[in-house]
Amino acid sequence: MELEEIIGIVAGVLTTFAVLPQIIKAVRTRAVKDVSPYMFIILCCGVGLWTVYGIFKMDWPIIVTNGVSFILNAVMLYIVVGSSKKQQKEKC
Amino acid sequence: MELEEIIGIVAGVLTTFAVLPQIIKAVRTRAVKDVSPYMFIILCCGVGLWTVYGIFKMDWPIIVTNGVSFILNAVMLYIVVGSSKKQQKEKC
Repeated sequence: MELEEIIGIVAGVLTTFAVLPQIIKAVRTRAVKDVSPYMFIILCCGVGLWTVYGIFKMDWPIIVTNGVSFILNAVMLYIVVGSSKKQQKEKC
Repeated sequence: MELEEIIGIVAGVLTTFAVLPQIIKAVRTRAVKDVSPYMFIILCCGVGLWTVYGIFKMDWPIIVTNGVSFILNAVMLYIVVGSSKKQQKEKC
């Protein structure tokens, strides 16, 4: 395997799973008020479109890394939106 | 321009600038304690390696989008780390 291939794989793994520490922190602390939901909305749209792009090109690495990334970012978005809805209810 | 090219460009713009709402929120509220610094450390390493990968392949779209993404994520990491250092000082 060539050096650039290894760099590409490591880069792909890092950017795909980068959101995991944020998910773990959110689940542990149950506090997400400083986290921007818009960041995760835009990320979901972006990696979702990258997945579609990968399907057009039939490029499996693009489909798999962005597909997994979409799921992880959607989980984080669900936590952020769910938490802010809960806070609004508590205020009422 | 073909449809898949347009999808790729829109996807690239979205994933590159997704962190901007988080930076704006952090600067406005000056509150980042719910944000995971590890997410931005891993993202910086990941997009940094993608930039190196782009340089190997001499692929300008990869270099430019990941280079910009590296700068934006580094700014957010600086805000998060700076804020937690400040909080530690205030505690002492």
